[in-house]
Amino acid sequence: MDGRKKKFIKELLEKPRARRSSGLFIVDGPKMCAEVPPEQVEEIYVSEGLLASEHAGELSELLGARGFEVISDRDMKQISDTVTPQGIIALVRQRRTKGLGEILESIAGSGASGLIVGLEAVQDPGNVGTILRSAEAAGASAVICDRDCADIYAPKVVRSTMGAVLRLPVLQVEDLCVSADRLRQEGFEVLAAHLKGSRDYDMADLTGPSYILIGNESRGLSEELSDRATCLVKIPMLGHTESLNAAVAASVILFEAARQRRRGSGGC
Amino acid sequence: MDGRKKKFIKELLEKPRARRSSGLFIVDGPKMCAEVPPEQVEEIYVSEGLLASEHAGELSELLGARGFEVISDRDMKQISDTVTPQGIIALVRQRRTKGLGEILESIAGSGASGLIVGLEAVQDPGNVGTILRSAEAAGASAVICDRDCADIYAPKVVRSTMGAVLRLPVLQVEDLCVSADRLRQEGFEVLAAHLKGSRDYDMADLTGPSYILIGNESRGLSEELSDRATCLVKIPMLGHTESLNAAVAASVILFEAARQRRRGSGGC
Repeated sequence: MDGRKKKFIKELLEKPRARRSSGLFIVDGPKMCAEVPPEQVEEIYVSEGLLASEHAGELSELLGARGFEVISDRDMKQISDTVTPQGIIALVRQRRTKGLGEILESIAGSGASGLIVGLEAVQDPGNVGTILRSAEAAGASAVICDRDCADIYAPKVVRSTMGAVLRLPVLQVEDLCVSADRLRQEGFEVLAAHLKGSRDYDMADLTGPSYILIGNESRGLSEELSDRATCLVKIPMLGHTESLNAAVAASVILFEAARQRRRGSGGC
Repeated sequence: MDGRKKKFIKELLEKPRARRSSGLFIVDGPKMCAEVPPEQVEEIYVSEGLLASEHAGELSELLGARGFEVISDRDMKQISDTVTPQGIIALVRQRRTKGLGEILESIAGSGASGLIVGLEAVQDPGNVGTILRSAEAAGASAVICDRDCADIYAPKVVRSTMGAVLRLPVLQVEDLCVSADRLRQEGFEVLAAHLKGSRDYDMADLTGPSYILIGNESRGLSEELSDRATCLVKIPMLGHTESLNAAVAASVILFEAARQRRRGSGGC
């Protein structure tokens, strides 16, 4: 593998700017590489070590007709950001969600009630990734992130999504307030997860079109954005806990929405 | 600060064995240090930089009558495991929960219905810490960990608990099967979170004494332990998600228990 290519891959792993300008990102590990839709795959690299291992059979089954290039274990170690590389990485084209219109159209086409998560300055990569993973599992149609969130194509985020980043539409916006106003106009309840919420999250009706807003790990939601909500919801807490982990708060509300939708009735 | 003390603190941060043999662990940051019950504090170190900063006023308010030793910023940097130390660390005595008997007594004394979480080989420190944080907030009485879980006194776990590790009883056991058998005999429902669960988690009655078992991040619960459960519960998932993050799965079930207990009725 030549030096320029190695440098490029390193930059894709480390620099948000390199990911933005190229429109590419890195996926690692056999399982997640196999889940990348073929039209998004640019290149796949497999280490000699993995090819020579007992997992080679599984690998060719997972990759199917996808072509790949073999590189030395030393090269793989150099271009990987983990201590124990899994022996396969893919350069993947980012899927761009163009705007709210695209999301609303796909919701209308699905016949289901919309469920969208908005993230304001959620900065921990593990939290952003975990929220994407939970959102897909709870049946959300999309996640909207502002510019202060961790980059969804950062390696740690990609890994924490366990593949959801390849499937769930994610829209990156300058300002979540605009999306809140628009979705309210479209008939969505805009629910802000807030420590000073006036209504328990499970007493809100989450069966209709719902936009759930989650704020920064230490500051919570900005006042500007909370003011846009149709309802401030809180998760009642016992003990001396002051707040929940952001990914936990998002997941608890998302799965309450899924629960209400399964049971066919809202919490009110 | 002398070299031997520095070495000892470093070992407490890095080595589970040093924590076990001394019965101590490290808490960092003004907020969490202030929450340590006075009888558990062994020593507190504050950096010159923090003392000279605008936060010095807040700090003395937080620490109250707790005494502390002032060390140089350089020493603080050397004994800290974070890139940007917060300028204060405490050596804290671990609180030992002696056995299930102690937990059952405190549940009986509280008059509330028991809610206990059992963790089998949950290895990510962030997950273990987040589960402790969620467990306290959802009203759990204790968490039981087996030997293959991340050490609850590891710095990353302590930080993720946001203080819950100082308040919530945690019992470390050799074998969770013994605790499952015992709690079943004591009238607990033993609920195993399982991808092959036969009952949706929200259709289980979680208002009575409940022991919720959560397994390893990739392997889930062992068959041996699942066999001890009175009910295998699953969290229904949409999309192509294969599983949830372990801390999310634990939290979703814990907050469903809290919800049912608030509303006064089980899910069945």
